Parts: sequence; C-alpha cells; structure tokens
Amino acid sequence: MSNVLIVHAHPEPASLTSALKNVAVEKLRADGHDVKVSDLYAMGWKPLADAHDFIERHDPDRLIYVAESKNAYASGLQTADIVAEQDKLLWADAVLFSFPMWWFGMPAILKGWVDRVFAYGFAYGVGEHSEKHWGDRYGEGTLAGRRAMLIVPIGGHLPHYSERGVNGSIDDVLWPIQHGVLFYPGMDVMPPFPVYSTDRMDEDGWAEIETAFKERLAGLFTDEPIPYRTQNGGHYDGKQRLKPGLGGGSDGISMHLVREGDPEEVLHGQVRQSRRLAS
Amino acid sequence: MSNVLIVHAHPEPASLTSALKNVAVEKLRADGHDVKVSDLYAMGWKPLADAHDFIERHDPDRLIYVAESKNAYASGLQTADIVAEQDKLLWADAVLFSFPMWWFGMPAILKGWVDRVFAYGFAYGVGEHSEKHWGDRYGEGTLAGRRAMLIVPIGGHLPHYSERGVNGSIDDVLWPIQHGVLFYPGMDVMPPFPVYSTDRMDEDGWAEIETAFKERLAGLFTDEPIPYRTQNGGHYDGKQRLKPGLGGGSDGISMHLVREGDPEEVLHGQVRQSRRLAS
Repeated sequence: MSNVLIVHAHPEPASLTSALKNVAVEKLRADGHDVKVSDLYAMGWKPLADAHDFIERHDPDRLIYVAESKNAYASGLQTADIVAEQDKLLWADAVLFSFPMWWFGMPAILKGWVDRVFAYGFAYGVGEHSEKHWGDRYGEGTLAGRRAMLIVPIGGHLPHYSERGVNGSIDDVLWPIQHGVLFYPGMDVMPPFPVYSTDRMDEDGWAEIETAFKERLAGLFTDEPIPYRTQNGGHYDGKQRLKPGLGGGSDGISMHLVREGDPEEVLHGQVRQSRRLAS
Repeated sequence: MSNVLIVHAHPEPASLTSALKNVAVEKLRADGHDVKVSDLYAMGWKPLADAHDFIERHDPDRLIYVAESKNAYASGLQTADIVAEQDKLLWADAVLFSFPMWWFGMPAILKGWVDRVFAYGFAYGVGEHSEKHWGDRYGEGTLAGRRAMLIVPIGGHLPHYSERGVNGSIDDVLWPIQHGVLFYPGMDVMPPFPVYSTDRMDEDGWAEIETAFKERLAGLFTDEPIPYRTQNGGHYDGKQRLKPGLGGGSDGISMHLVREGDPEEVLHGQVRQSRRLAS
C-alpha cells in the first residue's frame, strides 16, 4: 500500500472539485492507501512568496528570493508551513492536485503553494550544474519515483480544448504545470483528469464522472505516465535543445514525448531512467 | 498620447523586474503618455478569490464563484479593490505586466489579480453564447482595442526556451497567459519582453537590456501584435475547432497564428477584426 498526498485548492466544500477530492480520499483509503490532504483554503495557506518565508535572512537588505530560498533550505531557516509541505511530498508515493481551472491555470493559492514549497535545493537547483549536465531535472530530482496527477474541473467545453480547439489543446494549456512544475522536480506525470462543462453537470453526469474517476484512481500506480523525455536521457544537446531528428516533425510540445521510431540509444536512456524511477 | 497601466508583481523594489518597471514608467511618461502602476505587493493586493469578494452574496450558503462574480458585476456588488482595477483596465490603451517567471507562470499575487479582476461579464461571459457564437472572446470583448505586453525576467537560459528547448518554447510556456488571459478578453498581445539568465546579469548586460527594452516601449503602439486568430473571424468551426486546412500542418499552438497562405475569407475576417480593434 502506498502514501498519497492530495493538494486541494477550492474555497467551497460543496463544489464539484471538493466532491472529487472527497471521492479520492474515500476510494484510496478503501483500497488500503494512506492519504493526507493539504486543503489550502481550509488551512489558511499563506499564498504569497515574500520576505516572511525565511526565519533569518541571508541578506536582510535586498530580497533575492532564489538566494534566500537556497540559504534557508540548506540552513534549516524555512518557515514551518513550508517544511511541513515538503515533508508531505517526501512521504508521498503519489500526489494529486485538485483545483478548478481558472484562467487557464491554477488558482492563486495553489500557485503560491508551488512558489513557496518548491524551494531551491528541494525542487530546483538540484544536482550538478555544468556545461555537461544542467541539473537533475525533468525526470530526475528530489521528487523522482513519485507520481502526480491533476484533477481539474473546467467551465469550458471539451471541443474547445481538443487537438485543434481554440483554447489550445488541454495538453498545451497544462504544459507549464504538468511538465514545468511536476516533471521538472522528477515526478512521473499521469494523464490529467479534466472534467469539462462543469456549469452543466447533472446527477447522471456526476455518476458517470465518478465512475471514470474511480477507474483512474485504481490505475494510479499501474497506468502509464505521460512519456515526457528525460532531460539527461540523451534526447537533448548540451544547450538542452531537442536533438535534430527527434520529435517526429512536431512543432509543438509533443516533440517532447518519447515516440516509436526514436533511436535505440535514447529509448535505452529513457528506459533506464524509468526503471530507476520505478525502483 | 495614450494611457498605460503597468501591473507589477515583485516583492523587492531593488529587483531587476522592478527596475524594468521603473524604466517603463519613466520612458513612457517622457514620451508623453499617462502611466498608472498597480504595484501588487506594495498595495497589499488580496490575492485569493473567495467569499469576501462580494459585498452581498447571491447564494450565501454555497459559493459558486462564477455565479457570484456574474451577479456582483451586474449588480454593483463587487468589492472596491476589484472595481478600481477594472476601471484602470478600461482607462488604459495598453497594459504591461511586469513579473518574474516563477515555475513557468505568474507569481501567485498576479494570478490572484487575474482570478479576481477578470470577472464574469467583464472579461468572460461577454456577448451572445449560442450554437452559432460562443461569446465575444479571443480578439473581441470588453478589453478589445487595448494592447498588452509581458515583461518577464527569467532565471533560466534562452536556449532552454528556444523552439526545441527542453522547457518548451517561450511561446508554449506563455500560451496560457498571452492567449488565455490576455487575448481572451480582447487585448492585442505584443510579443513578450523576456530577459533570460537573470542570475548572471552584470552592468553591461543591464545596459543592453535597457536599450532593447526602450525600443520595445517606443514601438508599443506601432509594432505588430502576435497574429492570433480571432475566434469569430471565420477560422474556427461551430465547436470552436480550427477548420480543416488551416494551420499549415502545425500540431502545436502555432496553428492558431494567422499565416501566409490562409484563404482570403479568413484573412478578410481577421483584417476586418483588426481594423475594428484599431479604431
């Protein structure tokens, strides 16, 4: 049995987003998992990254957040709320994020959780940074071996988020979160669980969603994650650009997905990576 | 002469981001423009969308934020801080957003500004919503005729954000903001002004950046905006999917850019749109 952290960002306990969070808690516990919930609104989570995030300042005169974050993480000078969330992430085998899509991104309270908890030395600035190796990131890092999944109710309609939809595809819209926030510090990112047209949900609609959601929860540790290319798996050159010949002619983010026809050497690098992550 | 609003999100007045904001204020005023600044950290901007955003609740028992936003906007029940920002947006001919890229997005305080200020009836839920016309959005809407530009210092390095860079291109990373937040309510979005490798900036580097930035400010009202396709300009079908044949074979967000070779009818629709916006 595994440990699952749910980071939840909705102000209303009677919302669809909160209902999905509750389903996850019950279903995962019924399946024998340990579940912790960070209910950000209910906790009164401090959303803003600022000077108060450090018990003692490295430079009290000028706030360079990155530098203070690095110093505080290394010296045990982070505030207790940040440390508590980092500990939960380290405890977890999987992390679910449940939040409504607001303006094509996370609600501010969740973005502020990322901004503050994903400290330098914890989620970035990890590993050797040299000409040859630009950090342990994108598939490697502190959170490697963990799975992540977004649970994201959306007011808009599915076709608007389809491959040629006017909003951009759901993959395009979630790219900065799924690839940039979750894969970056090492997590394996599961396909998201979006729920569209939330303004029109009726009882039947909910029953269908609940069933589909429980199936996804059942597969949380066995379904295949999104096959993002690992940064250090041989796909990228020394300046972290996708090597010529890779990407299958894509001019969008899907060039960053491992695909059939990739040369053996990068598939090998990727597989090695995945094995390491799974161990 | 024109009116320019700068929405600024950085906790440190001595930061590079704040320095760029100051350059913008001085240069734009020297050129005869009227400038207002919403300095979100300094203002103590309330970042969280919650029940306190409405003077009176339509439904005091259950918070459906979209419904309360709609009701409050229509009935004059929004809080004063939200109304003040909406008034500044209506006053402005151009809006600059200056913020550091944190985790591939806006700092939480700026996301919270969007979540709260971009109310239903103001920035979304505008225009007819029917089978034939899904709102006045993406090139039309309350903020049509205004220009927007992101000023965004970034810790990471330029090649990592290039066309094949591991982070995704800067266009991919900024898509949810530039297209989703700014073009959606009607603004013409100028190419962004990113500054890379901000951890390594020296005096010479700053001088170069400052010169380039002033040139961009000088062209704020004359340079070409990003040629995003307007939703209602004939490019999309009834379900808001890009029509077959458009997009030049792109499988990424660049399919949503008007390009040479597009059929006359959509170019005509787009041009008509742009003219309307410019008037």
